[in-house]
Amino acid sequence: MTTLDRRLAGTLSPVLTPFNTDGTVCTRRFIEHCERLLEQDVGLALFGTNSESASMTISEKRRLLEAVYAAQLPPERMLVGVGACALAEVVELTQAALAGGSCSVLMVPPFYYKGVSDEGLFRAVAQVIDAIGDARLRIYLYHIPTVSQVPFSLPLIARLLAAYPGVIAGIKDSSGDLNHALSLLHEFRGAHFDVFAGSEIHLIEMMRAGCAGVISATANVNGAAIARLCDRWAAADGPAEQDTANRLRAAFARFAMIPAMKAATAARLDDPAWTRVRAPLVELQAEQQASLLKELAALGFYS
Amino acid sequence: MTTLDRRLAGTLSPVLTPFNTDGTVCTRRFIEHCERLLEQDVGLALFGTNSESASMTISEKRRLLEAVYAAQLPPERMLVGVGACALAEVVELTQAALAGGSCSVLMVPPFYYKGVSDEGLFRAVAQVIDAIGDARLRIYLYHIPTVSQVPFSLPLIARLLAAYPGVIAGIKDSSGDLNHALSLLHEFRGAHFDVFAGSEIHLIEMMRAGCAGVISATANVNGAAIARLCDRWAAADGPAEQDTANRLRAAFARFAMIPAMKAATAARLDDPAWTRVRAPLVELQAEQQASLLKELAALGFYS
Repeated sequence: MTTLDRRLAGTLSPVLTPFNTDGTVCTRRFIEHCERLLEQDVGLALFGTNSESASMTISEKRRLLEAVYAAQLPPERMLVGVGACALAEVVELTQAALAGGSCSVLMVPPFYYKGVSDEGLFRAVAQVIDAIGDARLRIYLYHIPTVSQVPFSLPLIARLLAAYPGVIAGIKDSSGDLNHALSLLHEFRGAHFDVFAGSEIHLIEMMRAGCAGVISATANVNGAAIARLCDRWAAADGPAEQDTANRLRAAFARFAMIPAMKAATAARLDDPAWTRVRAPLVELQAEQQASLLKELAALGFYS
Repeated sequence: MTTLDRRLAGTLSPVLTPFNTDGTVCTRRFIEHCERLLEQDVGLALFGTNSESASMTISEKRRLLEAVYAAQLPPERMLVGVGACALAEVVELTQAALAGGSCSVLMVPPFYYKGVSDEGLFRAVAQVIDAIGDARLRIYLYHIPTVSQVPFSLPLIARLLAAYPGVIAGIKDSSGDLNHALSLLHEFRGAHFDVFAGSEIHLIEMMRAGCAGVISATANVNGAAIARLCDRWAAADGPAEQDTANRLRAAFARFAMIPAMKAATAARLDDPAWTRVRAPLVELQAEQQASLLKELAALGFYS
């Protein structure tokens, strides 16, 4: 897939965020990384979980977004992560995305308070949509209960779709549960509600069931292969490609994913700056990095 | 207790945040509420969990803090909640507190990423302390694992105390587990590390064991009684006072605490504006509010 129509589809990656020595965001490396992803036919999920977006201030995210648009990266290939605990920040970043020409945003629910009601979560999303008041807006719900601890339930999604058809455009299902994704596809078939797999682990099964694509952390390090699998999942060599992608993912998943992907990126680019993460994350220790690179080499990657 | 020395002690309340019709913070009602708390000998834990601080932007918090100082409320009676996922925001709000004369801040750890290491959490706290670089700073760790899902472990606390003696001043233990609080008291006795109970439920036992005081949500609605119990826990009528306070707390805990305390405050002040909460929280429904007020009346409160 080389173009995306107004609805997102195919493979996207939560773009890793590189940091300078002083801990500030390195805009240059970020844009170069975006360009590499686009060359591999991978769309840009800016400010995702794996972008360390939670560790960035709203001002940092706004500035980085402006730099991305100034660099002429294609806004229609972007899914902008706007979720925050304070809804005023969600509105602010969504407005910045729309101003730059990106209509698609990914919204994790407010995640500090736990055990909140579907009524409260409905109001949170509705408040943002009403504040924006722009028919171009496409909201993708971000269901990642192991991290946010705040789920988007099926009845809540149904209520949002009924209240805001067209605006509620889909979901990234990072539950890690194939059955959950299948139930989403079954429940909302025909509702113009696109389900994106949260990783490539079950990609063939999910594409066969009707997923619109995949938004995967490991597309940062294995983008071309995941994009090819997502596009040609029904091909004869699909299962072999799936197996290869999953073995690579497992190599990263032995460590904390974000530091591991950054370590691999640093090695591939011969640019140690890429290893930096923000607290509370910690970069891989030297022996962990060596172990990861050894395993990647054994898998035929980065060698 | 009518004065606090430079170290906090006694009873504090996470100050409820009132909102205007348009959802903005109502500074006037907030300051009036602070004044009522101080009159009851209750210190001000600004921007706590029960303040809906997670639903407020850093700009809102800064403006409210400036308004509080402008209103001449005593900075030495304040514990300023500064925790956030983005550490730059923690630094910014801590600097604002110090500039206003409040040296004591409450820091919930970055709470988006789960399963992070003690090393990463150590770095998060250390980074803030190093960035502030002010010997007046007193950090109270905020251990509230049921909400943050990110705990301060005993080994982490020990490491922080060793690295930053004097600056790491204590903890609010909102684990809800008396044994956890007792283990903190036992482990760090003599380390100038003050343990605050996270609620009044076990207040007598905790004061007897050496707690410095209590930081309790229900001090918003039962401040004088909790402050008296905290001050005179060893008095003959202590157990009866404890029982009464606990029955009142249980009446609120039948509902979502924040909306319930706001509903009671609205009723007490005959000011319906106080019922407002920010999404994802939801105000009590009319029948819930009636049920709460009936139970409070039966307990002899607000009647």
